[in-house]
Amino acid sequence: MAQTNPVLGDLEGNSREIIRLTREAAEAGSDLVAFGEMAISGYPIEDLAMRPSFLAAAHERVDRLAVELAEAGLGDVPVIVGHPDGPFEPRLLGTSNAPTAIAQNAASVLQGGRVVARYAKHHLPNYSVFDEYRIFIPGDELLVIRLKGIDVALLICEDLWRDGGPVSRVLTADAGLLVVINGSPYERDKDEVRLPLVTRRATETDTIVAYVNLVGGQDDLVFDGDSVVVDRDGGILARAPQFREHLLVVDLEPEAATHAQLPDDVRRIELSPGAVDSEKPPIAADVAELPDDRQQIWDAIVLALRDYVEKNRFPSVILGLSGGIDSAVCAALAADAIGAERVFGVSMPSRWSSDHSRSDADDLAERIGLHYRTEAIADLVVPFENQLGLTDIAAENLQARTRGVILMGLSNQEGHLVLTTGNKSELAVGYSTIYGDSVGGFAPLKDVPKMLVWELARWRNSHAEALGLTPPIPENSISKPPSAELRPGQTDQDSLPDYEELDAILEAYINGGLSIADIVELGFDTATVQRITTLVDRAEWKRRQSAIGPKISRTAFGRDRRLPITYRPSL
Amino acid sequence: MAQTNPVLGDLEGNSREIIRLTREAAEAGSDLVAFGEMAISGYPIEDLAMRPSFLAAAHERVDRLAVELAEAGLGDVPVIVGHPDGPFEPRLLGTSNAPTAIAQNAASVLQGGRVVARYAKHHLPNYSVFDEYRIFIPGDELLVIRLKGIDVALLICEDLWRDGGPVSRVLTADAGLLVVINGSPYERDKDEVRLPLVTRRATETDTIVAYVNLVGGQDDLVFDGDSVVVDRDGGILARAPQFREHLLVVDLEPEAATHAQLPDDVRRIELSPGAVDSEKPPIAADVAELPDDRQQIWDAIVLALRDYVEKNRFPSVILGLSGGIDSAVCAALAADAIGAERVFGVSMPSRWSSDHSRSDADDLAERIGLHYRTEAIADLVVPFENQLGLTDIAAENLQARTRGVILMGLSNQEGHLVLTTGNKSELAVGYSTIYGDSVGGFAPLKDVPKMLVWELARWRNSHAEALGLTPPIPENSISKPPSAELRPGQTDQDSLPDYEELDAILEAYINGGLSIADIVELGFDTATVQRITTLVDRAEWKRRQSAIGPKISRTAFGRDRRLPITYRPSL
Repeated sequence: MAQTNPVLGDLEGNSREIIRLTREAAEAGSDLVAFGEMAISGYPIEDLAMRPSFLAAAHERVDRLAVELAEAGLGDVPVIVGHPDGPFEPRLLGTSNAPTAIAQNAASVLQGGRVVARYAKHHLPNYSVFDEYRIFIPGDELLVIRLKGIDVALLICEDLWRDGGPVSRVLTADAGLLVVINGSPYERDKDEVRLPLVTRRATETDTIVAYVNLVGGQDDLVFDGDSVVVDRDGGILARAPQFREHLLVVDLEPEAATHAQLPDDVRRIELSPGAVDSEKPPIAADVAELPDDRQQIWDAIVLALRDYVEKNRFPSVILGLSGGIDSAVCAALAADAIGAERVFGVSMPSRWSSDHSRSDADDLAERIGLHYRTEAIADLVVPFENQLGLTDIAAENLQARTRGVILMGLSNQEGHLVLTTGNKSELAVGYSTIYGDSVGGFAPLKDVPKMLVWELARWRNSHAEALGLTPPIPENSISKPPSAELRPGQTDQDSLPDYEELDAILEAYINGGLSIADIVELGFDTATVQRITTLVDRAEWKRRQSAIGPKISRTAFGRDRRLPITYRPSL
Repeated sequence: MAQTNPVLGDLEGNSREIIRLTREAAEAGSDLVAFGEMAISGYPIEDLAMRPSFLAAAHERVDRLAVELAEAGLGDVPVIVGHPDGPFEPRLLGTSNAPTAIAQNAASVLQGGRVVARYAKHHLPNYSVFDEYRIFIPGDELLVIRLKGIDVALLICEDLWRDGGPVSRVLTADAGLLVVINGSPYERDKDEVRLPLVTRRATETDTIVAYVNLVGGQDDLVFDGDSVVVDRDGGILARAPQFREHLLVVDLEPEAATHAQLPDDVRRIELSPGAVDSEKPPIAADVAELPDDRQQIWDAIVLALRDYVEKNRFPSVILGLSGGIDSAVCAALAADAIGAERVFGVSMPSRWSSDHSRSDADDLAERIGLHYRTEAIADLVVPFENQLGLTDIAAENLQARTRGVILMGLSNQEGHLVLTTGNKSELAVGYSTIYGDSVGGFAPLKDVPKMLVWELARWRNSHAEALGLTPPIPENSISKPPSAELRPGQTDQDSLPDYEELDAILEAYINGGLSIADIVELGFDTATVQRITTLVDRAEWKRRQSAIGPKISRTAFGRDRRLPITYRPSL
């Protein structure tokens, strides 16, 4: 089970990685190698699934990969690999009338220099971050490959989650091994739903389940790996680590195939037995342990940030250092992701900046060892204020925007990616300046509420202490009251309730979908709840940020087309 | 047929408008009044369909509307009105495993102070701007209401488009009249597909088809109205104008109901005949003519802009006037939308600005009569350049960002909505400065390619001339070569091919989905095509603009949640 980190659209690079790991697996004596969902193209491909030329290129790459594996002397080992398939004749989807889907989310079995079997995902998720029912044609045939007398059933990700459907056919097909290839993104406590599901399916179908996941960052998503093999009785036989590439080699003893006849909707392909020496001594498989919740979150952000930087080929990142908690945590994350030598911090004090904003930023820079400079903003702000006569909120925002112009100017001049340091609580209520502190290409804390930012900071510091290293985040940045420092003596709590209360209201309103009345019943003050929910509703335009415009033609840029940011090339 | 312009989420205001127009329709002797899709809530409601409190409020408002209509003496007239229905038990959708949909896209028939019948949309579009299969539970029962011996079938929008499905049941039910309530957004040449569809359905089902559409702007969408009634033989009996609210009253003579027995999946409700005097003289129905293509586009943008301003309660708009064609067209659109007295133009010349950039902007301001001021940027730019040592592209972008800071500062100080003047061709290739000229809340030309911008400018000027009015756009802004003027002597064609060629390549690549090889075969230069398609792919992050961040929790802000910007209130 090869837990790879594909680059979206890099068919060549991803294929080379597949060949490299297949060789490694073959050398370890593997009879069968499985890669993740869309391992050849990267995942999710979004509306690239509607480009015939992209699909044709992926299709051709799968065929060529089969040949290349054979040419590399790896033709005997069956390799299961996920990829987009197509282009097909446009198909009507669901209850809609637009015949737009021309692709399938597929898995191919490669052996002997060719594609010997192919399976198409049945269940296409269409909720949360997934839009697959919009872009893929569902498959309807179950595939079972017989290898050395073992029937191996194949599913793709969501297929495993849905009761009934192909899982029930795995049961009737009486397979000895169920291989599920996945592109299952991380979310907090995902393990609490994912592992019990795999376990349940293994016991339900009385089949060993091998669950292979992708790893890596792709725009907003982080795939966590955590590939796992579960025995018929639900016991964990092997488990790959989270958040890194891994080849998980495991010896299995699946039940031999018994069915001579399979149901009509199951296709069975007989594979050559391959050349593996069955007398090889058994391998002790890895069983990785899941780290603590805070560490998982930290590692997820680090990986997402690293992959966004590396996959988009940025040499370095730059961020404003205010002395506050958010920018301190972002700097520590960035240093963990790409090394302090590629992190550039800028202190941008104003007239209203406290002494500690500068000294805490200095302290942070020294602890982390990042590149550090100071660009005072007063001389830049004053000409604007005077020329335009800006006061109050307009003058406060001007300071934040001046900092934005500085960071973008240095980015353009020196090539850094600008990091946005705002957290989820701020973003939710729009407590930021548009084109000011919201400037930047990647926001590490976009989905981290303020209370959790503090938790992460404390966790990261104790983690360093436990290893005898310097804690990266100054204690004062953690303990002082948060402030935007856009006017004298300002604190966040001038405009917002305590963050503990704010985060609880946001959780209830946004994640819980509760009404104002419901939230008040939980014990919060009515006026506060009304104020916060109104802020949340009004902040949607800030969260979208890209300017709204009227739709004129059949295909607009932006909303109509959901394309990945991180991908190459043009096909 | 009441072609209304609802405000999304304003259940009270929209209901009052429904009562007002029902009274007007009743006074004109109507036996039946139909409003558009989701006329009570506004449309599309996006992920508000997942908020139980929003659904409960809409549901309650429909019940109350029935009572209020009766109290207003309008209880006799059956009123068909679209609204979200729910909350229902979460339902599994399509092939997915997430039981998230709790709403239906419904139409209710109100009479005698209560809801006498309800229909739920069967076909849920899930392509282009539509995401309904993600958020609604499809209906499965056809509704026929019998009124004065006439069987009236009811469908919602997409139901009409799909061959088979409920349309075929309308045929077997042998209805005399088919009422279709719609939220069908404008796109260029939409009439060429919409009207033939309505005509085809009328002749196929041998039924008079009354097609009621919404009108108005909602974020990126513009609903054009253009409600129409088509006779059994396909002839147009009545047609409402585009882009404005309208009550279309039409006398019909549908065939009397004959079926005593209907198929099991059709529900028939008998309505009271109402109190209308059948001896009233027939009414000559309006048959509006569709204007010229350029005028339709102009009117669509004007309406979208006006509604974005008014529905979000902005007092005024502000935009930079460069003397170029884009800002000139935006200013003319804004003046047409909300009146020149609410339009604020700012000339922001730099060291590199040509004399004509200032004189053309002056000329424009005078022609339109908008508020006009000059804010030179040199004194604001130089301190940044000197302090940060910015050169080349970084210095060019700095100028654009300085203008962005000026416009946002004036917006914050004075309350204007900032208009972004960039066009679709620029946006497609990323030929703009992020946080510079891309600053703003609404981009009138977001979906208008550059060649069409010139066409619209010429059309608007001749339109004025034909009416004996001052053409708003200076001839020199139309005829001079376009330039960003960020360095001496710069023109757009230093970086881009001629706009005619650029727009053709963009059309082929983005709308046509053609590969580079396909486009080269159309006769374009290979290197140019490669350069442009690469620019398009790289510009996706600019088009999205809102900073990317890793997903941590089950529900992130932004991508997971697709909420309208223009809506109120918090429920």
